[in-house]
Amino acid sequence: MKNNRLGIIGATGYVGMELVRLAVLHGQLDLTVLVSQSYVGRRFSDIYPAFRGLVDLELSELSVDELTEKCDLVVTALPHGVSAKIVPQLLERGLKVLDHSGDFRYRNANIYEEAYKLTHPNPELLEQAVYGLPEIYRNKLKDTQLAANPGCYPTCSILGLLPLLRGGLIQTEGIIIDAYSGISGAGRKADLSFSFCEAQDSIKPYGVVGHRHTSEIEQETGLLAGSAKPLTISFTPHLAPFKRGMLATIYARLQDNTTVEQIEQAYTDAYAKEKFIRMLPTGQMPETRNVAYTNFADIAWAVDQRTGLVKIMSAIDNLGKGASGQALQSINIMLGLPEETGLLAAGGAI
Amino acid sequence: MKNNRLGIIGATGYVGMELVRLAVLHGQLDLTVLVSQSYVGRRFSDIYPAFRGLVDLELSELSVDELTEKCDLVVTALPHGVSAKIVPQLLERGLKVLDHSGDFRYRNANIYEEAYKLTHPNPELLEQAVYGLPEIYRNKLKDTQLAANPGCYPTCSILGLLPLLRGGLIQTEGIIIDAYSGISGAGRKADLSFSFCEAQDSIKPYGVVGHRHTSEIEQETGLLAGSAKPLTISFTPHLAPFKRGMLATIYARLQDNTTVEQIEQAYTDAYAKEKFIRMLPTGQMPETRNVAYTNFADIAWAVDQRTGLVKIMSAIDNLGKGASGQALQSINIMLGLPEETGLLAAGGAI
Amino acid sequence: MKNNRLGIIGATGYVGMELVRLAVLHGQLDLTVLVSQSYVGRRFSDIYPAFRGLVDLELSELSVDELTEKCDLVVTALPHGVSAKIVPQLLERGLKVLDHSGDFRYRNANIYEEAYKLTHPNPELLEQAVYGLPEIYRNKLKDTQLAANPGCYPTCSILGLLPLLRGGLIQTEGIIIDAYSGISGAGRKADLSFSFCEAQDSIKPYGVVGHRHTSEIEQETGLLAGSAKPLTISFTPHLAPFKRGMLATIYARLQDNTTVEQIEQAYTDAYAKEKFIRMLPTGQMPETRNVAYTNFADIAWAVDQRTGLVKIMSAIDNLGKGASGQALQSINIMLGLPEETGLLAAGGAI
Amino acid sequence: MKNNRLGIIGATGYVGMELVRLAVLHGQLDLTVLVSQSYVGRRFSDIYPAFRGLVDLELSELSVDELTEKCDLVVTALPHGVSAKIVPQLLERGLKVLDHSGDFRYRNANIYEEAYKLTHPNPELLEQAVYGLPEIYRNKLKDTQLAANPGCYPTCSILGLLPLLRGGLIQTEGIIIDAYSGISGAGRKADLSFSFCEAQDSIKPYGVVGHRHTSEIEQETGLLAGSAKPLTISFTPHLAPFKRGMLATIYARLQDNTTVEQIEQAYTDAYAKEKFIRMLPTGQMPETRNVAYTNFADIAWAVDQRTGLVKIMSAIDNLGKGASGQALQSINIMLGLPEETGLLAAGGAI
Repeated sequence: MKNNRLGIIGATGYVGMELVRLAVLHGQLDLTVLVSQSYVGRRFSDIYPAFRGLVDLELSELSVDELTEKCDLVVTALPHGVSAKIVPQLLERGLKVLDHSGDFRYRNANIYEEAYKLTHPNPELLEQAVYGLPEIYRNKLKDTQLAANPGCYPTCSILGLLPLLRGGLIQTEGIIIDAYSGISGAGRKADLSFSFCEAQDSIKPYGVVGHRHTSEIEQETGLLAGSAKPLTISFTPHLAPFKRGMLATIYARLQDNTTVEQIEQAYTDAYAKEKFIRMLPTGQMPETRNVAYTNFADIAWAVDQRTGLVKIMSAIDNLGKGASGQALQSINIMLGLPEETGLLAAGGAI
Repeated sequence: MKNNRLGIIGATGYVGMELVRLAVLHGQLDLTVLVSQSYVGRRFSDIYPAFRGLVDLELSELSVDELTEKCDLVVTALPHGVSAKIVPQLLERGLKVLDHSGDFRYRNANIYEEAYKLTHPNPELLEQAVYGLPEIYRNKLKDTQLAANPGCYPTCSILGLLPLLRGGLIQTEGIIIDAYSGISGAGRKADLSFSFCEAQDSIKPYGVVGHRHTSEIEQETGLLAGSAKPLTISFTPHLAPFKRGMLATIYARLQDNTTVEQIEQAYTDAYAKEKFIRMLPTGQMPETRNVAYTNFADIAWAVDQRTGLVKIMSAIDNLGKGASGQALQSINIMLGLPEETGLLAAGGAI
Repeated sequence: MKNNRLGIIGATGYVGMELVRLAVLHGQLDLTVLVSQSYVGRRFSDIYPAFRGLVDLELSELSVDELTEKCDLVVTALPHGVSAKIVPQLLERGLKVLDHSGDFRYRNANIYEEAYKLTHPNPELLEQAVYGLPEIYRNKLKDTQLAANPGCYPTCSILGLLPLLRGGLIQTEGIIIDAYSGISGAGRKADLSFSFCEAQDSIKPYGVVGHRHTSEIEQETGLLAGSAKPLTISFTPHLAPFKRGMLATIYARLQDNTTVEQIEQAYTDAYAKEKFIRMLPTGQMPETRNVAYTNFADIAWAVDQRTGLVKIMSAIDNLGKGASGQALQSINIMLGLPEETGLLAAGGAI
Repeated sequence: MKNNRLGIIGATGYVGMELVRLAVLHGQLDLTVLVSQSYVGRRFSDIYPAFRGLVDLELSELSVDELTEKCDLVVTALPHGVSAKIVPQLLERGLKVLDHSGDFRYRNANIYEEAYKLTHPNPELLEQAVYGLPEIYRNKLKDTQLAANPGCYPTCSILGLLPLLRGGLIQTEGIIIDAYSGISGAGRKADLSFSFCEAQDSIKPYGVVGHRHTSEIEQETGLLAGSAKPLTISFTPHLAPFKRGMLATIYARLQDNTTVEQIEQAYTDAYAKEKFIRMLPTGQMPETRNVAYTNFADIAWAVDQRTGLVKIMSAIDNLGKGASGQALQSINIMLGLPEETGLLAAGGAI
């Protein structure tokens, strides 16, 4: 069987790099084109010496012709706004595309434009794009030409809430999401705030009001709740001093008659068959180290009877299930491969 | 002027050690007795080589006689339950005592007993003890013989909420506190969970329902709100991979008519004269690195109009303002010294 | 083709765990027995939750019968002294064995006994055992029933020196090896020295004179140099604050007539065909992050004309090429599989 | 008594910042002018929020007039080459100056020019400048107008070797220094190599041949050895993943008749009265965490009879005794204050 051919635009960013790393382990994908405008002509392994001897492919300029010729599927790991301009050109040539930016995640261009402060150049494509969260949109991903890879915080949050929203077990008002991300979430860049000396040993909130992932979470949770419009959710991101990992602690008010058994059942129904969602046994809590370098989401919950709240703790690797792992999961689906191909590994453990 | 003489029971735990560190910088305190049952006969600097040449005092067994003879004030940095038995003996001898355990923090022995699963041997002392949060109880601390040093999470949380509760600007129901502590909060012990290889690079929730600091927060916030009884608050602690630091992100529902100006005014009124509370300018967020190794609390807040919430972010060093720094602040007051003596330093900065 | 069946004694130590992690990725190995005396009856994934859903095998007591029945090859990741007693029992049953302790690494029982302060119970097996460094003993490993997995420091050091010693390009007297290991090298244990709060942010030397890996390095470098007896080498290990990684900086005096070109040629000759040894281009230096979670050794060298020294910098993952990765490389050879099976991955990169 | 007035040029770099931090604790210094060309008009505490409420001084442009008017002593924490141009202007105005660059550390302008690839504009000042290592040049520092603060690696190395060189106990040829520095040594800058994600969890050599601190070490060790010219030393620096700390492991060949007792005596003679040099008891090794945030140097040594080497392990904080702590020690001397003023603190301990 011939391998599928994968191209990556934006290959030297952390999302691109992680996808390269996963592709090496995959077995049924050939990396054929790695585009990196900043490093044209250099080898991928010059930029990431960890890949010496494994991926010495030369980095190239963006050429739609070359991608068309050499790829079956292209990942666009580009800044938002940039993707919106390039993706249509790839689609026209018949390429399958998985886009990692925010440009194709929204059903409603207005919400995108408000969140990203940009005018969407191709709002008509939003209808065609499938939100690449396989646990919800697996069937649609099979046949789409364009998948929009979800944001890391939305993935972590939505997976935590999905069973309870679908089951109508929590109130849709007043949901609070308090989340922490590893520093790789800020991308690969020389920036004093993310320098070792100024980022180690510290946590801090940022984007406290109006972080753009809020609208993405609200869109998808609204759909899960069967609501006519997006929910209104309070979301607060923070930065934590490790490279990879994300934890969302989610607070939701239970419906008056919701029982612990119903909650248990809802999670079981939703996730018993999901390879990448691991519901933890009672008393165990997610730790980001257990999902780092993997595509797993580890989830636990607890009911606090005194306050009427359910607390849901959801952990992923922001570059794994929060970015490149999930991208590969969707790519497997889009290419007709078993969904878990190349993704069942144990991360670092320590 | 003769220096005051300080004894510490439990000197080799992290709270004890940090107090020793601060005492070295203080200038008006003499460390006379360091009790450490595990290391009797060894020097303090054998256990903590950072103190070689600075604090080479020999560690001794607990002797109430020796403490009475050599000390003006004794800090008991002991496990809860143990303090309750030793503190009365020290008080009887006329010593001033600052206790760091949970044993004397409660006004109501029942709440203590439920939180700590212990029978309080000296409930009558609860009336005499002053809760050692100088920003609230400064005046009472001046004359007390016994201060109960607050917990780290309660300090961080209460300071964040104080101005809004006193001013009646937030609803007292539904407050949610999501907090992260550095690993030193777990104390000095050989434990696989806190080993470098298993604790680095990871965050995790713990004590998700029923952490005993909840009741301490509820007691004090109830008093601040002028409520007849403790508030009911949802509190979730997490562990973060650094030695020192604590961040609480607090969610409270605004009263219908509360304005941003009122909130601003409330924080100014409460803290403009407080040396150790630093309200951050609009747009700046607390980072734990900025308070590590200090007695400062850095606080910011933001109103999220869409959700009707105010988010308060409060950062301290769990061993500083959350333990030994605050202890020293109270000790200064109890000894009639300027409150900030030995505490105005910049931490590590980097 | 039927997979080979692998058993691990000492499966929950870090070396055992890393071997499990690699086995999951391998594709042609079945993990059939995981022995862990401390955790009999619990699942492997209870101890390492990162493996939930991947390796939920129950941990068992040591039973030679069970191992004989269910395994083709057994790894003994046991303390030295313990291996020496168990390995012979496994060999008698016809099992292939790869032992990770120091018990079978020596050709001369006296040197072992001096280094390890133990009497060797089975010195006759030393002749049969093959030192499991494939870059030297590949051919012997093909046919051996017993391989002795090298120590981490010896692997890192020997690989750095091999081409120069074989080529006679350096003086065999006065070699100095200054090496740093990540904290996982100390094993999985609750120990205050390796607690997060006491190990983070610090480096320290240990075993400064007489570390037992010295004799292992001296044995193999002596053989490489064609010397009648072991070399005399100065070796100083240090601890560095990360989980995985090892760097040896090696100082050797050049022979009078040695040229830079000869050195270059010697490394090329030795390693051009080695999959896991990566000679870095001039001007690039090994960084442990580039080999963490892999079986690679990254090596660079520089001649300092002023001092007449060549400096060799060699980096590995102490748990990878320094332990479990190398073990798997030898296992592949012992089982007749392609040597690199399951080992060509890029580590974490970040 | 009136405090001395201190100005700092280059106040927002890490060396400047650390000096500000120490000045806050000092008690007898007033910070009057903080020059930072990059941040003119902003407050020091805007750049380092840890200093909010402690040092809110406005950062100013370089004005020799202002410095002359407001300062008694000025620290120039500037890039090499820049200092050489500014320092003479300050000296002319009668200011005392402590310069942190390499510009005034050398006795021989040629060596400076080769090491720094610069032409020295004021070589005549080299004679006047005193090398600011108080353990050697204390007496000269009392009367100098200009002190040249030593480099971090030279400080760490020279202090380790001083007693043995002075005593003639080691051979002056073949000394090898293998050293690791924390990342703050690279200065405050946005640089991908020092970003959290690319610097954490890794060690690497750099400047393997020809690092410019080599010549500084060689100059001072030559003088200590009473040699007519600088020694020839092999020096290899590495980067380690923590903010502060430096460890040098030094290898020297013993003279034939040198005894362990002589070595012991030499260190005692040299350092028994030195407040900031702590000789560790036999069997204890320096750990950088014990000197971080202090002006201490922790030193241990061990003789390896088999190889004829003495290994000396010397640890400092690269920003403490390696930069700003030592600067303050020299400043105290230059100003006639007790040498240890403001410097006897225990660092972080944890």
